[in-house]
Amino acid sequence: MPITLKELADYCNARIAGGDASALIHSAADIKCAQAGQVTQLTNSKYAHHIKNSSATACFIAESFAVEKIPETLALLVCADPEMSFIKAVELLHPARVYKNQIAPQAVFENNVKLGNDIYIGPYAVIGENASIGDLSQILAGVYIGRNVKIGKYCRIHPYAVIYDDVEIGNHVIIHSGAIIGADGFGYKFRNDRHVKVPQVGNVIIEDHVEVGANTCIDRGALGSTRIGVGSKIDNLVQIGHNNQIGKNVIMCGLTGVSGSCTIEDYAILAGSSGIADHVKIGSGAVVMARSGVAGDIQAGMQVFGSPAKDKKTAYKEQIAISKLPELLKTVKMLEERIRKLEIDD
Amino acid sequence: MPITLKELADYCNARIAGGDASALIHSAADIKCAQAGQVTQLTNSKYAHHIKNSSATACFIAESFAVEKIPETLALLVCADPEMSFIKAVELLHPARVYKNQIAPQAVFENNVKLGNDIYIGPYAVIGENASIGDLSQILAGVYIGRNVKIGKYCRIHPYAVIYDDVEIGNHVIIHSGAIIGADGFGYKFRNDRHVKVPQVGNVIIEDHVEVGANTCIDRGALGSTRIGVGSKIDNLVQIGHNNQIGKNVIMCGLTGVSGSCTIEDYAILAGSSGIADHVKIGSGAVVMARSGVAGDIQAGMQVFGSPAKDKKTAYKEQIAISKLPELLKTVKMLEERIRKLEIDD
Amino acid sequence: MPITLKELADYCNARIAGGDASALIHSAADIKCAQAGQVTQLTNSKYAHHIKNSSATACFIAESFAVEKIPETLALLVCADPEMSFIKAVELLHPARVYKNQIAPQAVFENNVKLGNDIYIGPYAVIGENASIGDLSQILAGVYIGRNVKIGKYCRIHPYAVIYDDVEIGNHVIIHSGAIIGADGFGYKFRNDRHVKVPQVGNVIIEDHVEVGANTCIDRGALGSTRIGVGSKIDNLVQIGHNNQIGKNVIMCGLTGVSGSCTIEDYAILAGSSGIADHVKIGSGAVVMARSGVAGDIQAGMQVFGSPAKDKKTAYKEQIAISKLPELLKTVKMLEERIRKLEIDD
Repeated sequence: MPITLKELADYCNARIAGGDASALIHSAADIKCAQAGQVTQLTNSKYAHHIKNSSATACFIAESFAVEKIPETLALLVCADPEMSFIKAVELLHPARVYKNQIAPQAVFENNVKLGNDIYIGPYAVIGENASIGDLSQILAGVYIGRNVKIGKYCRIHPYAVIYDDVEIGNHVIIHSGAIIGADGFGYKFRNDRHVKVPQVGNVIIEDHVEVGANTCIDRGALGSTRIGVGSKIDNLVQIGHNNQIGKNVIMCGLTGVSGSCTIEDYAILAGSSGIADHVKIGSGAVVMARSGVAGDIQAGMQVFGSPAKDKKTAYKEQIAISKLPELLKTVKMLEERIRKLEIDD
Repeated sequence: MPITLKELADYCNARIAGGDASALIHSAADIKCAQAGQVTQLTNSKYAHHIKNSSATACFIAESFAVEKIPETLALLVCADPEMSFIKAVELLHPARVYKNQIAPQAVFENNVKLGNDIYIGPYAVIGENASIGDLSQILAGVYIGRNVKIGKYCRIHPYAVIYDDVEIGNHVIIHSGAIIGADGFGYKFRNDRHVKVPQVGNVIIEDHVEVGANTCIDRGALGSTRIGVGSKIDNLVQIGHNNQIGKNVIMCGLTGVSGSCTIEDYAILAGSSGIADHVKIGSGAVVMARSGVAGDIQAGMQVFGSPAKDKKTAYKEQIAISKLPELLKTVKMLEERIRKLEIDD
Repeated sequence: MPITLKELADYCNARIAGGDASALIHSAADIKCAQAGQVTQLTNSKYAHHIKNSSATACFIAESFAVEKIPETLALLVCADPEMSFIKAVELLHPARVYKNQIAPQAVFENNVKLGNDIYIGPYAVIGENASIGDLSQILAGVYIGRNVKIGKYCRIHPYAVIYDDVEIGNHVIIHSGAIIGADGFGYKFRNDRHVKVPQVGNVIIEDHVEVGANTCIDRGALGSTRIGVGSKIDNLVQIGHNNQIGKNVIMCGLTGVSGSCTIEDYAILAGSSGIADHVKIGSGAVVMARSGVAGDIQAGMQVFGSPAKDKKTAYKEQIAISKLPELLKTVKMLEERIRKLEIDD
């Protein structure tokens, strides 16, 4: 349902500059392709040139962001935080799918399941013995929830996510399809020519406001818990081994692996395809750059790169040095020759 | 059902040289292990020595491929393109499983689903509101298809693949089990001590003849589409982030990750465990070698290696130089000593 | 159900030293956090300091392991192999979930399925035509088992694992959720501007005592089998391509990829996020260290690191040399200057 520019500006706490306040906005789009009837945002000067010829009807922009030669048809929506205002606009114009309060007849409940109010449970979901699901949570089709699992309020678990027995999930948690929470950690002792399985009898605790990406795996603790702290966000295809302690507001990007018994402190960022060896501590706010492999503790706030990972500046210096290395080999050969000559002359 | 060598040769446009045209062929096998009653191929001189003692009944081979001392029981099937002829033979001798036209009674259909003709829908598949599935497509057991999803003709979606709402899939597309198409992209803005989720309201468009491997994830666009072009082939456990534009006939091997908003042009090859940072453009036909990490644009046709990835020749030169580096350190130390001596003498 | 220390000691073949033999033990815990009523283990001197202030009631320890100043409340459980005794204790105190002999009414069976005795089949499992499942195996909710699949005795297949047609699985095999066994290998021939799919008509053979982690993919052979040998253990999110031959007791850690047609010999270890190019042979007992990329054969017993992977000692030497490289560049520049001076003086 389209709304007027004025309505949108009011809703998003923005001031209209230019354009037509009664123009209708039906959707949001990227500044590179926004058309008439669409609202966009401009927050990065790198993309500022796109505004000149934009057909968009409106564009969120910060007070301080200078632009010139704006099309007459384009209204600026001037505001304090255009990124947040744009998020509000997107949510208004593209409302999320609503799952109504309903238990699908094809869902299976084992004994003693405890369901909160206003819950959606999709077809073919399987809810194990003694599991509990909080108010307003949505368990989509085919989700498997093991025995004794606790799921808080306002959660959404997407189709075919699997929650093994004993896992505890807080409130406002999103788990995407194919994520496997609480499978056995990878632990064996080698005896008599075979790998003897170390029992994995702990669990996983996922705190509030965590999002877990598609096909990500978070293993249960061998003993005790693997823990994901409040507000941490985990991308797709991430492997989190047993007994890791992930702090608050940590970011873990796609294809990253954390072996086991690591501590990843608050606000740390593990970029794509990075890896952490076992028993390592990543300090608060540290950044492990893409594809880096960390084998020892990283101090708070450090940025590291490479495999083995080093302080970013050191790693970059080494990279530059390596690029000069083939030339250096030649140089040294020539120096040797010059020394030889000097020695003969000597 | 075995067929005669003559029938096979005719079917595959090959000429029989030697052997017994009435011999029965029941299956296909690799040249290293093919037995009597089996057909094989020889296209790589590296494996030519296997033919001498092969028990195979027949072997596809190119006109130009010189072989000596072939067992008397072995017939050569001489043809223009033995790889293609062999594929035809394999398909004939090992026919693919046929899924008959049938809707399993355990499938769940939400409102207004549009089904084409001659469709197979397996048990426990869930098909969302307004979804459409084209003629002759096969939706195997437990596939989840979201709201408004469009699936073309002649597709096969394997068990427990998940297609989120609004995804569009062309014709002749194969999606393997556990693939998650259209989960949310990984985008947040950090405000007031928390990561605020950027709504992911775009979709995924998969064009004709694409194959998506098992447990691969393709995220929906934040706004607009993530697109996989005609004929591209994606291996298992690949992560494709939001708003990537993957061209035509691109190859992406296992465990590769593409962050977001990248352009991967036609015919590019991303080898195993490679990774692409966000907003990067990989030119047409470029090759990102295995385990390479690309942080900047790659020109068409380039081959790059390493992390950070460089032109292959440069990277190899550096690798060779690095292997000489420990020796170089010693050499320089000795040169320094010789210079010191010269300086003293001087 | 708690048991007395004496009962536990007897069950685990340990001798009690100190403490109270009638004290009740209800669970097991890590030495860092074990409390009263819990049993722990101490096998690594790195953690020996934790014992001084431990509130644990008992601790497994080796005869030869010297400890001092143990709390009075702590009993030592002295034994020959504390790790194995502790495993026994954990299994006793934290018994695994028992799945009773039962076929869920929501399971679907195609024709001619052969079921052994005392089997558990969970809701929404789908068992394909001609499949067979051995005695005492457990097929949990939603597992998909294709046509002609053979599963041995004492297996456990976790929810939503997918076993494609023709796969053969031995006895005592554990397959975790989301694992995809037998999807098509990744093979194409490029002709007439398109990638023609090479038929993947082989299968996967998984031998006895293998464990396959969550969301791991093992592709079927193009022709012939992909094989996982007895006792091999595979972590989560591992990609094993077509026709690989994995030996006995191999360890493959998370996010590792093996391209295709490789031979990984017995007891080899592929550490986390490592990768193996196609047609490579990894010798018996070789160790591919974390994040290493192997492009050529590795001899038995070798340890390799890096990408491209090299003998560990060589790789480490090079790493140290690289860290000296920026300094070396400066040194060589100065040497050049000194030579120049000598040449002028000369």
